Amino acid sequence: MRPRLALVAGEPAGIGPELCVMLAQAPQPVQLVCYADADTLQRAASALNLPLQLVDADADNAVATNSQPFQPGRLPLIDSRQPQPTQFGTLDPRNSASVINALLAGAQACLDGRCDGLVTGPVHKGAINDAGIAYIGTTELLATQASCEVVMMLANPGLRVALATTHLPLRAVADAIQPRALTRTLRILHAALRDRFGIASPRITVLGLNPHAGEQGYLGREELDIIIPVMDTLRAEGMCLRGPLPADTAFLPAMIAECDAVLAMYHDQGLPVLKHSGFADAVNITLGLPYPRVAVDHGTALQLAGSGRADPSSLRHAVAIAARMGQTAIHA
Amino acid sequence: MRPRLALVAGEPAGIGPELCVMLAQAPQPVQLVCYADADTLQRAASALNLPLQLVDADADNAVATNSQPFQPGRLPLIDSRQPQPTQFGTLDPRNSASVINALLAGAQACLDGRCDGLVTGPVHKGAINDAGIAYIGTTELLATQASCEVVMMLANPGLRVALATTHLPLRAVADAIQPRALTRTLRILHAALRDRFGIASPRITVLGLNPHAGEQGYLGREELDIIIPVMDTLRAEGMCLRGPLPADTAFLPAMIAECDAVLAMYHDQGLPVLKHSGFADAVNITLGLPYPRVAVDHGTALQLAGSGRADPSSLRHAVAIAARMGQTAIHA
Repeated sequence: MRPRLALVAGEPAGIGPELCVMLAQAPQPVQLVCYADADTLQRAASALNLPLQLVDADADNAVATNSQPFQPGRLPLIDSRQPQPTQFGTLDPRNSASVINALLAGAQACLDGRCDGLVTGPVHKGAINDAGIAYIGTTELLATQASCEVVMMLANPGLRVALATTHLPLRAVADAIQPRALTRTLRILHAALRDRFGIASPRITVLGLNPHAGEQGYLGREELDIIIPVMDTLRAEGMCLRGPLPADTAFLPAMIAECDAVLAMYHDQGLPVLKHSGFADAVNITLGLPYPRVAVDHGTALQLAGSGRADPSSLRHAVAIAARMGQTAIHA
Repeated sequence: MRPRLALVAGEPAGIGPELCVMLAQAPQPVQLVCYADADTLQRAASALNLPLQLVDADADNAVATNSQPFQPGRLPLIDSRQPQPTQFGTLDPRNSASVINALLAGAQACLDGRCDGLVTGPVHKGAINDAGIAYIGTTELLATQASCEVVMMLANPGLRVALATTHLPLRAVADAIQPRALTRTLRILHAALRDRFGIASPRITVLGLNPHAGEQGYLGREELDIIIPVMDTLRAEGMCLRGPLPADTAFLPAMIAECDAVLAMYHDQGLPVLKHSGFADAVNITLGLPYPRVAVDHGTALQLAGSGRADPSSLRHAVAIAARMGQTAIHA
């Protein structure tokens, strides 16, 4: 059976809706259930001059969907109606609650077992906060909803980078590297590589926090006091961990080839190389949730919205990866 | 006239000496004066089975050197005698003072105008500190000797990355981003791109300190309080500055193509992409000294020393870049 994925379009004024419409034009390795505003999707289809036939996903019969021939533009939908009509390129915070509701509804379908995974389009943090809704990021929103600890991992076809800390001011990073949290992060990462990606014995490279990984304490002590002891404990449990390595050495192509994932201590230590080495194909994966969640690794690109010039590569990769992760879970 | 460069071999037990010997086998666009221990260079030549004829650089006539036909292995030398014979691969802190003296002597020749630039091989920080000599890095050593403020810039053929802070523990970075220091760094970088690299109107991309460049203050205020005001002031003076940009966006290949240098706020924000995208050809350039200084961007590689398997690409690039920077200075 093809996995059933909840597809959340994200910010209506951005490129998310038209990327969903583009996706519906070709057969997918999954059943998609779109969570978005129906009118917005229709406007996107009109703007791009593409066919779109929205069907009620609740009434939609999964078996029928599986057996009937592919129809370009047919898209099962859970309508997340928004109060204001979408104008591509122009944010309207009055629609922000609908965006959050669509995310939570798609995720709930995964928690309830009605869907096998969640794929999300780009969300605009400013528009949501401007609506008075406290929001750090979708990763954090989903973790709260599911009451679990998660790990953010970015991936392109050649590299996976997980983060020990995510959206923190730089001055808060050093204090956030603590034994319990780091241990939990490595356990989640290791389990996900094994269970969701089918890697029997994952090889994880761990970066130091400080330049040159602290240089034996000359440039900071967190490696000696926290990172190395945590790694030693987890190695004793059988994890295959390398490091802590200096960030500028660990990303040499020959080093990347020897590991299944790199754990960076913070956002800007790990993500620049990942995006530099393959941005269009990059996706953002949330590990530790009870279901696979994959997001596009790009923003709302308001200036492109409605033009049809947005690149659907990241969304296509997100669907393919969520499908594979969902399959692994189904077959496990 | 060909520029005259001081070439310091660096740590004797590492690959620096044999890289100098390799360099002497082919004609160079410069006159080289090597600062190293004569016996170490001879041992390196023997280990690699390469010809080496060391001549006293003080007695060497620059005009004669220019006009006589090239002889493979001929290398003018200022002998920096070390107390213990070199064993490749085995550090001996008793030789560390000689390494520092060679660096200072080569740099002094540049300060005195006897040489037009300085090229340095890899130095082993641990071996020097183990000898009781306080040493953070060669960049800092040269800045102290010349009593000037400097900027560290790493470069490969496709990217230049300068650093606002260098070898600091991560927890010290945020407080080190201050208006005066940042202003000075940008002025040094701008002047060097113009005067040493011949770029009439340098385009500099400045990174934010925080993830997403602080996201309008949601993820840190240093961009709003320090970085943006400094950039505004310097723009008013005519500098072409872009940013502050998020680090994971600024290094997209299309973004790199639109600037002459990126200013990263700290070590691991800027150097991983640079080394990932071209390590063998990367060099470390010190800006702000009264002379051009270029270093190899690799370590002492003790395990390779004496094997002849070390890659001289970085040293060759360092010589070529120092030569070009020296020429610009001569013609200015």
